[in-house]
Amino acid sequence: MTTNHQIRLARRPVGLPTADDWTSTEAEVPEPGPGEFVVAVSHLSIDPAMRVWMNPGASYVPPVEIGAVMRAGATGEVTASRHPGFAVGDHVYGNFGVQEYALSDGEGVDRLDLSLAPAHTYLGALGIAGLTAYFGLLDVARIKPGEVVVVSGAAGAVGSVVGQIARIHGCRVIGIAGGPEKCRTIVEEFGCDVAIDYKSENLRDALRKHAPDGVDVYFDNVGGKTLDSVLTRLARGARIVICGSMSQYNATERPPGPANYMALLAARASMTGMVVFDYEDRYPQASAELAGWLKDGRLRSREHIAEGGVRAFPETLLKLFSGENTGKLILALGNG
Amino acid sequence: MTTNHQIRLARRPVGLPTADDWTSTEAEVPEPGPGEFVVAVSHLSIDPAMRVWMNPGASYVPPVEIGAVMRAGATGEVTASRHPGFAVGDHVYGNFGVQEYALSDGEGVDRLDLSLAPAHTYLGALGIAGLTAYFGLLDVARIKPGEVVVVSGAAGAVGSVVGQIARIHGCRVIGIAGGPEKCRTIVEEFGCDVAIDYKSENLRDALRKHAPDGVDVYFDNVGGKTLDSVLTRLARGARIVICGSMSQYNATERPPGPANYMALLAARASMTGMVVFDYEDRYPQASAELAGWLKDGRLRSREHIAEGGVRAFPETLLKLFSGENTGKLILALGNG
Repeated sequence: MTTNHQIRLARRPVGLPTADDWTSTEAEVPEPGPGEFVVAVSHLSIDPAMRVWMNPGASYVPPVEIGAVMRAGATGEVTASRHPGFAVGDHVYGNFGVQEYALSDGEGVDRLDLSLAPAHTYLGALGIAGLTAYFGLLDVARIKPGEVVVVSGAAGAVGSVVGQIARIHGCRVIGIAGGPEKCRTIVEEFGCDVAIDYKSENLRDALRKHAPDGVDVYFDNVGGKTLDSVLTRLARGARIVICGSMSQYNATERPPGPANYMALLAARASMTGMVVFDYEDRYPQASAELAGWLKDGRLRSREHIAEGGVRAFPETLLKLFSGENTGKLILALGNG
Repeated sequence: MTTNHQIRLARRPVGLPTADDWTSTEAEVPEPGPGEFVVAVSHLSIDPAMRVWMNPGASYVPPVEIGAVMRAGATGEVTASRHPGFAVGDHVYGNFGVQEYALSDGEGVDRLDLSLAPAHTYLGALGIAGLTAYFGLLDVARIKPGEVVVVSGAAGAVGSVVGQIARIHGCRVIGIAGGPEKCRTIVEEFGCDVAIDYKSENLRDALRKHAPDGVDVYFDNVGGKTLDSVLTRLARGARIVICGSMSQYNATERPPGPANYMALLAARASMTGMVVFDYEDRYPQASAELAGWLKDGRLRSREHIAEGGVRAFPETLLKLFSGENTGKLILALGNG
């Protein structure tokens, strides 16, 4: 191949993105300069945060500029290298973007051990999603055996690992997901003792029933009404980990805040924002522990792999917001 | 005196309380039974939380029952005792309620050292207000020298001590208060480097100006729009102490939550509820430190003492919500 198909941000969407928010461009496959290498991208990580990156204001990272290749974490294989640390044939993870070939200087790029797991698992339980669950539960929430852990988006990339790690640590896990299919999966596969279907159940009532003594830890991936409901059921000393607010990313009006936040006072509870990149120096230790659990069967990494190449990116991102995926949503590019 | 004038809760108010929400009753001055003593109440602590205690639902304490003497922290002098630990003439602090004489079994009652400070100061900087500021800053927020500390209600009972303790610990203090008079006072007397008048200034603009690198600690006494504005100006790793939400206690409709709460994620910040009673076993050490600062002049306790006896209780509580007080609002009962 000599052509590099790319997806670039064309405009900043209002509400749910549409295909017209990106343009498809073609470029030559790049040649590495000194200290550089080229990656043939195999799998793109499709993340809720992508919607945030499309907005004009900086969040924890700068926005994607109009005209720039859409940002994406991805795996791939080195196809040309003038970098001493990366050789042709190396399998790598990095922020390669929504394109078939990426030029890299190695910054933020990790080599993958495919003897442990296939490349796409490094976008799931062995990737950012798994690490987010790991540090969110163990560092931010500091879960203890016997505690009641509630996780929203429990069938999603992060949530599916949250339930399992909480279970491994001896917690009682209540997962919130949408629809009977996902609710069955989170109990059968993702470590949840109980599933609450937010589409058909009253969340406050269900929490009162399943967590009569209150919620010790809430791992929040969705925000909105779900967060507000969980706030009414906090146990003394509860910790809420703010990891995302999936329910709000496409809002066209400013979503209301959690009106029940004063429950934090009565419960002496905390609500803490986390960004996994802060824990980068501890990724190796965490990854090793996650890989160990994966190997001994205590942890499953579920990936939902969409096909279609880079041009399928817009429709694949929309699958995330319509909740079509179970586990980590990935777009396969056909490279490897 | 043989008559004990009391103020009892007559009904649960909607919105701002009115005098009709309480009834004035008379009883005999009680006689102590075995293990009991009687206190002639001298000063009542007038607290924002009183409004919360009038609501039907439990917050961090049960509501005051209809017909019960209105709950209030107070100081007074023991006038009769059959309790081995308390003697006639002892000056004490306890939850004596809005009445002239209280019967006590000693639970939750502390003896006061009037050689250190007058009784009413034990409702101010040496009382619950001072302890709330102390533990909120030092335990919950863990302030460090050089940090930017913002406090709302900076001219109030807790806020006035927050500013001073933060200053003592080498922080840069930005106080938020209403009106030029209070703004002058918080700078001249309550440790603030800068005052922001929320009644005449745009809070976000003022914070951008006075805390260009962001807010490290926000001690929140008021909630509402103030909290939401401060959320937009958090420094990385900021800690928000949720101590109260004065702006919302009399709301007749459910107030909106802090819409900018997702700023916690971008800032890796936390928002933590605190209730000072949790630190009871450490009151002696904290009180000793507060008394030391008071003695060496680094800490001022400002009390706003209203007169009029128990019957003036309703109007005095309303002064709190209209913001008439500077420092700790106290109602003197004329006993001692």
